[in-house]
Amino acid sequence: MQVALVGITGYAGMVLYQLLRQHPAVDEIHLYDHKLIQNEKLSEMVPAFYSDDTAVQPYDPDAIMADNQLVFFATSAGVTSKLSQPYIKADFPVIDLSGDLRLNDEAQYQRWYHKPSAPAQALNQAYYGLADFHSAHGQNYVANPGCYATATLLGLAPLVKLDLIDPDSIIVDAKSGTSGAGKKPAQSTHFTQANDNLQIYKPNQHQHIPEIMLELQRWNGDVKAIEFMTTLIPITRGIMSTIYAKVKPGVDAAKIDEAYHQIYDDKLFVHYSGEHLPDIKQVVGTNNCHIGVVYNPTTHTVMADSVIDNLLKGAAGQAVQNFNQMFNYQESSGLELQTFLP
Amino acid sequence: MQVALVGITGYAGMVLYQLLRQHPAVDEIHLYDHKLIQNEKLSEMVPAFYSDDTAVQPYDPDAIMADNQLVFFATSAGVTSKLSQPYIKADFPVIDLSGDLRLNDEAQYQRWYHKPSAPAQALNQAYYGLADFHSAHGQNYVANPGCYATATLLGLAPLVKLDLIDPDSIIVDAKSGTSGAGKKPAQSTHFTQANDNLQIYKPNQHQHIPEIMLELQRWNGDVKAIEFMTTLIPITRGIMSTIYAKVKPGVDAAKIDEAYHQIYDDKLFVHYSGEHLPDIKQVVGTNNCHIGVVYNPTTHTVMADSVIDNLLKGAAGQAVQNFNQMFNYQESSGLELQTFLP
Amino acid sequence: MQVALVGITGYAGMVLYQLLRQHPAVDEIHLYDHKLIQNEKLSEMVPAFYSDDTAVQPYDPDAIMADNQLVFFATSAGVTSKLSQPYIKADFPVIDLSGDLRLNDEAQYQRWYHKPSAPAQALNQAYYGLADFHSAHGQNYVANPGCYATATLLGLAPLVKLDLIDPDSIIVDAKSGTSGAGKKPAQSTHFTQANDNLQIYKPNQHQHIPEIMLELQRWNGDVKAIEFMTTLIPITRGIMSTIYAKVKPGVDAAKIDEAYHQIYDDKLFVHYSGEHLPDIKQVVGTNNCHIGVVYNPTTHTVMADSVIDNLLKGAAGQAVQNFNQMFNYQESSGLELQTFLP
Amino acid sequence: MQVALVGITGYAGMVLYQLLRQHPAVDEIHLYDHKLIQNEKLSEMVPAFYSDDTAVQPYDPDAIMADNQLVFFATSAGVTSKLSQPYIKADFPVIDLSGDLRLNDEAQYQRWYHKPSAPAQALNQAYYGLADFHSAHGQNYVANPGCYATATLLGLAPLVKLDLIDPDSIIVDAKSGTSGAGKKPAQSTHFTQANDNLQIYKPNQHQHIPEIMLELQRWNGDVKAIEFMTTLIPITRGIMSTIYAKVKPGVDAAKIDEAYHQIYDDKLFVHYSGEHLPDIKQVVGTNNCHIGVVYNPTTHTVMADSVIDNLLKGAAGQAVQNFNQMFNYQESSGLELQTFLP
Repeated sequence: MQVALVGITGYAGMVLYQLLRQHPAVDEIHLYDHKLIQNEKLSEMVPAFYSDDTAVQPYDPDAIMADNQLVFFATSAGVTSKLSQPYIKADFPVIDLSGDLRLNDEAQYQRWYHKPSAPAQALNQAYYGLADFHSAHGQNYVANPGCYATATLLGLAPLVKLDLIDPDSIIVDAKSGTSGAGKKPAQSTHFTQANDNLQIYKPNQHQHIPEIMLELQRWNGDVKAIEFMTTLIPITRGIMSTIYAKVKPGVDAAKIDEAYHQIYDDKLFVHYSGEHLPDIKQVVGTNNCHIGVVYNPTTHTVMADSVIDNLLKGAAGQAVQNFNQMFNYQESSGLELQTFLP
Repeated sequence: MQVALVGITGYAGMVLYQLLRQHPAVDEIHLYDHKLIQNEKLSEMVPAFYSDDTAVQPYDPDAIMADNQLVFFATSAGVTSKLSQPYIKADFPVIDLSGDLRLNDEAQYQRWYHKPSAPAQALNQAYYGLADFHSAHGQNYVANPGCYATATLLGLAPLVKLDLIDPDSIIVDAKSGTSGAGKKPAQSTHFTQANDNLQIYKPNQHQHIPEIMLELQRWNGDVKAIEFMTTLIPITRGIMSTIYAKVKPGVDAAKIDEAYHQIYDDKLFVHYSGEHLPDIKQVVGTNNCHIGVVYNPTTHTVMADSVIDNLLKGAAGQAVQNFNQMFNYQESSGLELQTFLP
Repeated sequence: MQVALVGITGYAGMVLYQLLRQHPAVDEIHLYDHKLIQNEKLSEMVPAFYSDDTAVQPYDPDAIMADNQLVFFATSAGVTSKLSQPYIKADFPVIDLSGDLRLNDEAQYQRWYHKPSAPAQALNQAYYGLADFHSAHGQNYVANPGCYATATLLGLAPLVKLDLIDPDSIIVDAKSGTSGAGKKPAQSTHFTQANDNLQIYKPNQHQHIPEIMLELQRWNGDVKAIEFMTTLIPITRGIMSTIYAKVKPGVDAAKIDEAYHQIYDDKLFVHYSGEHLPDIKQVVGTNNCHIGVVYNPTTHTVMADSVIDNLLKGAAGQAVQNFNQMFNYQESSGLELQTFLP
Repeated sequence: MQVALVGITGYAGMVLYQLLRQHPAVDEIHLYDHKLIQNEKLSEMVPAFYSDDTAVQPYDPDAIMADNQLVFFATSAGVTSKLSQPYIKADFPVIDLSGDLRLNDEAQYQRWYHKPSAPAQALNQAYYGLADFHSAHGQNYVANPGCYATATLLGLAPLVKLDLIDPDSIIVDAKSGTSGAGKKPAQSTHFTQANDNLQIYKPNQHQHIPEIMLELQRWNGDVKAIEFMTTLIPITRGIMSTIYAKVKPGVDAAKIDEAYHQIYDDKLFVHYSGEHLPDIKQVVGTNNCHIGVVYNPTTHTVMADSVIDNLLKGAAGQAVQNFNQMFNYQESSGLELQTFLP
């Protein structure tokens, strides 16, 4: 199996490349970059890989389809929205880690991403690959979910699917490390600014909100909106999504516990730990999501603490999980990772 | 003016000592420690002050009252609860930075602090010194508020006092740096564990909850309970209290904005910045609380972002503010501090 | 192959356990703890492994030898010095990650470790397993090198072995993250103290100095002493050993470069990168040592920058490397790790 | 007293502005920026000062000289080199925090700063204001020393001035926090890259080397060169300069101790602490330099640990110290700062 990877210079691409190098079914990884006009060495393009002289090739869809059986895009928003045609036409397998194919409506994309969307045909064709809930087998055009979306949807799923909460009461206080903001240097992720600091950003405006809403509404049409805050935390990797909701009358701690068990006991990569509230270190380095839940009978509020590694389960790891599903590989292929402890 | 300080070995005591050294009305600071049986040099007791050979004296209430006009206690919970008698009897001014005098009920203290409370007389005598809302002038026995309590109460005050929110809907997602957990080493604050991590702790069990409830109920009897989560963040100093509530019918962004202006425009140490959401660096090194507020009309939810330096406004700074009020000094005496930027 | 691991509660033990779980030749890992008197669950003993209910058994040398083919000790200094007898007597394979067997002289151990040494017989029997330089094959009693020692020896080897430097001029300015200081909480590794700080400790007194000297003298008898400073850095994992020495007359940049190539070009886990100076992130998560070297012709000084992950190459990784050598497994078995990027 | 400040958008300018606001002799601070063409509010230009609406004016030397008695430049290298003429001509007091006036040779500047130097006249006119060693009184054109230079020169002074060390043996392993690298975002100071990392940069090429050499040679002509390494550390503020040198025959610990006492016992802002090795937290927030020294008789090597706050003693604090000297204010005016503890 030969796979193509476009976008090795970003964090998600770097991590995906490392995963694919250890994937038992992947024989060769071909790297492409849409800014190149001739081959360049990986060691020159990404200093962190200074001992790896693999060639990075200019982006060329024909070459990609000729030399590979699938292409991963780990590019920024706004790139794959313009590149969909040849792959759709050829029905060639794509996994896109950017947000470009996650929404199904051109106007919505424009509103949240502030740039033109992919053509409607591409948006309609795309499949939202929340890998722990539905299999990408049979899909050829997979939109890999966003990091905040993954942590939040996995934390909310039992409550929403089993209709345990007031659908108007969902509040998400999500925290992310700086690698989630990408590799391009900026004031907010300058060490001097980010260190010893907490910074709320994009209040109720984060571009992962609409993909969360789409999936929640597939699960339960009563959910019309959520409150969604994102805070930048001085850590490199990891997301904690702290989720609050009022329960419906008659719901108690036992019913909530049962719901999480029901939904997650058979899922390989989601671990429900009851009232044990996971910290971020529990999952960094792995494709796991850990979830702890506390119910407060005085306020009738359930709090779910859902943690993931934003670059693995929130990006490259889930992409490999989707890849495994598409090609019927074992679910854990290439994902037998150990928590990065301590 | 001579002042006594008991508890120089903890973080709040260290910071308070530094503030008092620069206070224009304070001529001498006498240090006492209840673990000593003879004088010891500060440089020996607190390595961080290795160039300061000031004597630390054994704790002795008679000596304290003879040589000073006021005593600050910057001791752990469970210390001042046992030491109240002589000061109350002598009507000698006390400012207590611990939680021992903040509640007015013995059973409540026992429940939240897991140790015996101060005598009922002491609890009743004590005055809760939330310095930006009521003056400690005329008070002799001041309980200095907790750090989480200060950030949360200041963030909530306009909403609760002016009755803008559903009293059953308050959710507080509060984040604190490690200095709030005290100087005693522990697994959760070990650098190896705290770095690159977020750790939720004491869910709905933090001991600052009851003092918040007491003050909220003084402001608005309709508030019966709050959801209160505390997360340990890898920063040294600072608290961000992110507060969510559903507004009452008819309340909109303009009314909320007006309320914050009404309550805070004349307050020296509280700065309301509208929709500009303050980060923690804005206040570290100062006695200020900065508050930004965003209203989401879709979810009818108001979010307030309230930040303080936990060791200043959340401890030593507010103690000096109470001290200034008690003795009718200028409000900013000893508190003309600059934000620790960048 | 069954292996025993004593000391799962410390950082090196935790990481070793994770490596062994993925080692293709290891069928079962039996955990033992010398503080237990009956079996306990790993999830109870080490909260970080809360989803792993593997039994930890009380320490019992007979059981260990009956049920396993080798024992790893990842215990603190002072433990294995008392436990050597049964294994030596039975000629049972041991890999000891503590410092107890690294020196060959009882008085030296006592001087640097401030506690009684292992019996002389054990010290003499022990083999110093600097795995990139000599194979542990045929050895049964292996002392795994210290983290600072590994980074420093690998950085110095070409200069010392090929006699390129003035033997009296070696200065090592070594920096370590806090995980090197162990899991027991202490003031110096309290987040509040370690964060935003650099702390020099044990100047010229670090217990890894004598094992470095022993190995250097095996390589080149002219080296009589080194200057060795250790600084605690606010990072979780990683060591950078910055090494300075005056070169001998006639030595220039080309000769130095040639020496590093000569020594390291065929070594799997040591990567010499010429004048590219590796940062710590290059090696964290792997068993690699990366070394960059700059020669300053004005000061006749060579500077080597040697970086490792203190818990892998500096502890558990090198232990697995020694294990592979002892049992003739492939050198990279269980060590095909990816750099933890970004 | 009215003072002008050019360069409020950088870190040194931000800190200098805060110091000047509390300086008892400064009545007004006028802000200027050479990128403006009309007035702008400080709150707009520097988000960290969002509650300060002070006007920032376009750069205009005539206005500056008309409205002020002195101008501080806190601009990047390459700015003041072009702006010297009007001030020199008018003999108007200047304190320049950039490196543009620190060297006395055009070619040297060009070599180390990679840009054209100030005119020779300006270089000759400029006075190197190492404030703890010589007074700027009577000087009108002051080059404020660099941060690395200050920490290193203060650490070395007693050894070099009193001729205690082999002049060819000086090795400086200097570590700096990210604020020293300036406010402009870059890959090396991106939080994701800098956190959990150590990065050596500009080996023997740092632009502070030539100013260090100039001052050392004024003190002791035998010093011809130094080895000088700079490592970027994941902290916001602070420099630790770890200095090594071989002593001359006959020099021992007592003589070294005596030398440091002789040089520093009467200096207000330099604190020599003997064998107590200061950590960075001891000085952050102050204009102090703390120095600890350990002599190793086995290697005949002295190690000095010199720490400063790079933005205060290494920039804005020393600028105020020079200002105080120029105008005969008390040495500590505006610099009565407390260590930022814990």
